[in-house]
Formats: sequence, C-alpha cells, structure tokens
Amino acid sequence: MSNERYERGWQKLQEIDGEAGERVIESLKDIAPDFARYLIEFPFGDIYSRPGLDLKSREIATVAALTALGNAAPQLRVHIQAALNVGVTRRQVVETIMQMAVYAGFPAALNGLFAAKEVFQARNEKGLA
Amino acid sequence: MSNERYERGWQKLQEIDGEAGERVIESLKDIAPDFARYLIEFPFGDIYSRPGLDLKSREIATVAALTALGNAAPQLRVHIQAALNVGVTRRQVVETIMQMAVYAGFPAALNGLFAAKEVFQARNEKGLA
Amino acid sequence: MSNERYERGWQKLQEIDGEAGERVIESLKDIAPDFARYLIEFPFGDIYSRPGLDLKSREIATVAALTALGNAAPQLRVHIQAALNVGVTRRQVVETIMQMAVYAGFPAALNGLFAAKEVFQARNEKGLA
Amino acid sequence: MSNERYERGWQKLQEIDGEAGERVIESLKDIAPDFARYLIEFPFGDIYSRPGLDLKSREIATVAALTALGNAAPQLRVHIQAALNVGVTRRQVVETIMQMAVYAGFPAALNGLFAAKEVFQARNEKGLA
Amino acid sequence: MSNERYERGWQKLQEIDGEAGERVIESLKDIAPDFARYLIEFPFGDIYSRPGLDLKSREIATVAALTALGNAAPQLRVHIQAALNVGVTRRQVVETIMQMAVYAGFPAALNGLFAAKEVFQARNEKGLA
Amino acid sequence: MSNERYERGWQKLQEIDGEAGERVIESLKDIAPDFARYLIEFPFGDIYSRPGLDLKSREIATVAALTALGNAAPQLRVHIQAALNVGVTRRQVVETIMQMAVYAGFPAALNGLFAAKEVFQARNEKGLA
Repeated sequence: MSNERYERGWQKLQEIDGEAGERVIESLKDIAPDFARYLIEFPFGDIYSRPGLDLKSREIATVAALTALGNAAPQLRVHIQAALNVGVTRRQVVETIMQMAVYAGFPAALNGLFAAKEVFQARNEKGLA
Repeated sequence: MSNERYERGWQKLQEIDGEAGERVIESLKDIAPDFARYLIEFPFGDIYSRPGLDLKSREIATVAALTALGNAAPQLRVHIQAALNVGVTRRQVVETIMQMAVYAGFPAALNGLFAAKEVFQARNEKGLA
Repeated sequence: MSNERYERGWQKLQEIDGEAGERVIESLKDIAPDFARYLIEFPFGDIYSRPGLDLKSREIATVAALTALGNAAPQLRVHIQAALNVGVTRRQVVETIMQMAVYAGFPAALNGLFAAKEVFQARNEKGLA
Repeated sequence: MSNERYERGWQKLQEIDGEAGERVIESLKDIAPDFARYLIEFPFGDIYSRPGLDLKSREIATVAALTALGNAAPQLRVHIQAALNVGVTRRQVVETIMQMAVYAGFPAALNGLFAAKEVFQARNEKGLA
Repeated sequence: MSNERYERGWQKLQEIDGEAGERVIESLKDIAPDFARYLIEFPFGDIYSRPGLDLKSREIATVAALTALGNAAPQLRVHIQAALNVGVTRRQVVETIMQMAVYAGFPAALNGLFAAKEVFQARNEKGLA
Repeated sequence: MSNERYERGWQKLQEIDGEAGERVIESLKDIAPDFARYLIEFPFGDIYSRPGLDLKSREIATVAALTALGNAAPQLRVHIQAALNVGVTRRQVVETIMQMAVYAGFPAALNGLFAAKEVFQARNEKGLA
C-alpha cells in the first residue's frame, strides 16, 4: 500500500499539519482506512507537494476557502494551525479571514475569527507562535 | 458623498480591477448608486487598503474563496484578472484554483479553471500577461 | 388528482407569480408532472396560504434567501417579480438585496441587483410597476 | 387534520427513521406543530412513498446530498441511521460518503465519515447492524 | 476612530441586538478590533440605518437568509432575538423559518426552528416577548 | 506519467462518461494538464473503481449531490448522462432529483429537472435511452 505519493504526502502532511494531521489520519483508521490513504496521497502527495505556489500562499488560500464555505469548522482550525506552522503570521491569518466578509458575509468572517482566536489561545498555552 | 474612504477605495479599485471594476460600478448607477459607493468604500477603501497582507496574497485568497463558493462566476473572472493585475502569475492562479478540488470538490475547481482559461484567452488577445 | 390544497395553491400561485408561475408548471409537464403538482400544493397550497405572515413579508424573505444562496438565478427573478406583484416596492426589493451583502457577501448582492435590474427593465417595457 | 398523506407519511417515517424520526416530530410540537405535519406529509407521505426508486437508493441519495451540503449534521446522522434501517450496508454508507470528496471536497467527506462513525458506535452498543 | 457612521451604527446595533450585539463586539476586541469597528460601521451604520425598508422587514430578511444558508448558527440566534426586539412576533419568526423549507430544504428549516425554540425559551426565562 | 491508477481511471471514465468525459479532459490540456491527470486518477481511478458500491448507486449519489449543491450545472448534466450510461433509468434520475426538493429546496430540484430535460432531449435526438 506504501508508494511514492504516499511517502511524499505523509512527509508533507507532517510538515504542514503536524500532530493535528496525524490525529485526523488516526481517527479514520477504523472506519475508512482507504480514505486516510487518499487524504495523504491526493491533497498532500499530489497538490501541496506541487511547485508553482509556495506553502504560505497555499495555506492562505485554504483558510480563505474554508472561512468562506463556513461548513467545516474542524478543518478550518486545522488549517489556521497549518498556516502558522508554515510561516504565515497571525496578523496575515486574521487579515485573510476578515477579507472573507466581502465575499461570504460577516457571519462567515466572524466565525472564522472566533476559530482563529481559539487556535491562537491554544498555541499561547503551548508557547507556539 | 466623496470622502477619504471613497477616494482611497476608488484608487485601490483602479489599481486592482482596472476597467472591469469601473464597469461594475457604472452598471450599479441606475439601480443602486449607494451600493456602488459601499462597494468602493468597504471592500476597497477599508479591506484591500489595509496593510498586514500584500495584494498578491489578498487576490489569491479571493480567487480561492470564489472558486470554492462556486456561485459567483462573474466576480471570479474579475478577480482572476485582478490577481494577474497585481502580479500573481498565471501559474499561481491555476495552482490556487486546482487546490480548491480538495476543499470544494472537482466541479468547483473545473469551473474555476474554465473561468481562468477564458480570462487568459481574453488577455492574450490584448497582449496582457 | 385535483384537491383542496391544489386548488388553493393554484390560486395562490397565480396571485403571486402570475404568468411566470404558470410557465414553470407548464415546463414540468413532460418531465415530472407530479413535481408540478407538489410545487403547487406544498409551497403555494400549504406555505404561502398560511396566515401569520403577510405576502409582502413572505416575498421579502424569499428574495433575501435566494439572493443569499446565489445558486438559483431563474427563481430569484421569478420572486423579484412576485414581490412586486404583491405590493413590495422596487425600492424595498433593492434594499433587501443590498442587505444581503452583509450576510452572504458582495458578489451575492451584486448578482441579486443585476437580476433586479433585468426584471425592472422587462416590467418597464410592459408598463408594470 | 389526519388524512391519507399523513397516514402514509407517518408509516413511512417509522419504517425509515424509526424512533429518531418520532423524536424530531415530537420536538416540533410546541414550536411549529404544522411543520411537524408538513414534514410527515411532504417528504414521507409524498416523496419517499413514491414508486420508481427503491428506499435503499433514496437513502443513498440523501446521505450523499447531506454530506455534500455539509450544513445539516443532525439530519445527516438521522439519515445514516435510516439508510442502515432500510438495508443499505455500512460499507455502502461509507463508500457513498467517501465519494463526496470528489464533489464537495475532503472536509465534507471527513465530517460525513465522522458522523457515520458516531452512528455506527451507537448502533454497536444497541446490537444493531 | 470615532465618527458619524460609527456613532450611528453603535446606536442601531443597540436598538436591534441589545446586549447580544455588544458581546459580539467585545469578543472581537483582542483578535480583530478593526473588524469590530467595521461590523458597527457597515452593517449597522450604513445598511440597517437606511430608510426605504423598515427594521421588521430587514430582520425578516436576515432570519430568512441565515436560515437558508444554514452555516451561521450563532448569528441566526442573534437575529431571531433582534427580530423580536424590533417588533416581529414569534409567530412571524416561525413562519419565516418554515417558509425556508421551500427554498433551502427541510433540514435548514428544522435547524432554524430549533434555534428559534432555544431563543424563545431563553426569553421566557427573562420574561421577554 | 502513465500508471496503473491512470489506466484504470481512463477506462472507468470512458465506461461512465463516454465522450463527455473525454471532452472535459481535452479542454484541460492547455490550461492544467496535471489536473486532467488528477481527474482521471482520483475520482475515476481511485473512487469509482472501488468495489463496495455499484456504479448505479454511485451515479445516483452524484446526481443527488450535484442537484443539491446547485452550483455545478455542467457537471450535473455530465452525470445525468453518466447515470443513464451505467443503467440508471430516466425515471430513477427524475425521482432522485425530485427528492432533493426535501433536502435543498424546490429551486435546486427545479433546476435539476430542467437539466435532466435537456439531457433527455439530446439523447432522444441521438436515439439513446
């Protein structure tokens, strides 16, 4: 089952999402182990591993999209963390989310900001940037 | 009716959207002139004028969000243009849209890519990057 | 197949949507005649026939929702017409749509305003309010 | 208030949703009793009672749609149960949800899988398939 | 930072949302104070302060839209309260939400009704209409 | 670039979507050739090739989801065709779409039915079922 895309994806997942990503994979093991594999192979092994757009920009795009869609709160929190992990600043995360008020309305932006607040507080407690 | 936010917004609108932005404003004049003003003042005078996130990243965020939402095709085309206007490369636009397959599904990404194709072709004809 | 809900719904459909409603029903006859019947019976025979909220408020609610959802352009145009048919003013339609910028973003509101513009122009040509 | 559609709908609701459906109806009694009636009459008395598509396929369609929409978690859990109640296997539920990654993105599919996991665990505790 | 739009917006926010609005503003102070200001200035200072549509109709429009979108539960509860604060009756709130079954499906309407139930119960405990 | 997943996906794409699928792939060649490859590999090579859910059920799920989402009209038409290609009857397609009125509202179902009507007419002209 192991292959080049899986290996590349697993490394990329750890670089971007760290422990939070591993927990998602772990939680899929009993219900849909193949989906855990796809999640590593396609988003991380194929997409995030592509050159042509740096990881900071990729995470800004993802935080923007998940804030705008507004229906995937756990994944938004994971990607706010991911953005900070790859070097996006808290300020840039907040600016990205605020901008979504223009494209998806104030409630979407508000809920995004509250998600960021939660992530920032958890990171403060761990002494992370 | 003119004021500092309006002036700042109008300049920002022209910097980002050029003629396409002006056409949107013009088309609102007979039905909702105040909305034309709000559109200049809030998104452009307030949000896009903020420091803390560069214009390239802001346009990547907007292209990502509009691709993911998938229900605002004209605005997506305007912002693919805007992204190119502020220095995002075609490759980066394409990468941003492709990534949305992960967060909003393949149809959203496909429709975003077809929008980009249309914009790129129109710009080719005008000799624009 | 005719019954009290159907009769009440048909009358309500004509009161609210006029010819536009009849055309929708007609266009369903060959592909899903039962759905044409459900459309008359549930939305119009059950919901719009209820006391407790006047028709003007009901159409303001519908125009708001369809503008915000942004994925049902033909139905939005039908209900902008319906709103005007039951006595909502053009100004109130425009205000309702503009307000959606707050809850669903500027693109949704813009596309709603352009739909209203189209409906208003068609009514101008027919000499309707 | 009782009628043929209501009777048919009530039976269908119990066949499909069992206790979970009854609880939803019960919880509407004080706030919107007519809506409880509509919920029995239209979705269950009209739609789910139709020949032309078997109940298993109907529940696969509903699980797919609610997973893709991603904004109705309680109803998704009710319909994962309903699918199992009418004979869809756990494997088929999982396959249906996984497939939604293609049409609505990985977060929608992930949240659907976690809902399935919750439902499966609750059924394990009750000794249900 | 204080200005005419801010003052007008702050008064309108208190008239419409009362304490609940103030709490939202307060909760933004540490993460995005400028967004708290925009929230007062644009939705409340610009939009809700406009003549041309009465506040009751505006809140009916907002409750309709947030019910239909289905991805902003906290804001829906705030605006069900706001509707009642400006004189919309509980019956009218319930009718507005029920109507959304037609435009956004039964799950959206159900979740809106459960939000209303929660708000009504909290107001009962405080002796509010 | 050719590999097992690609080969399997290409065969599955042709089995399900026929010419319509090939046209989509073709139209991506100049703007995002890698995305054409991903589209073959992940949805078709990974997902649709899985045992555990028959192709008819998979297409019913996809038609349901795309009707409910309502923001991917071209892909909905492709999958109505795909459903018919793999043996779903027109009646079953219509039933699946009608059912979405319950979960995503009447406009979504209406627009789905009009898409089906268009596909059925085109197939009539070609003498297809």
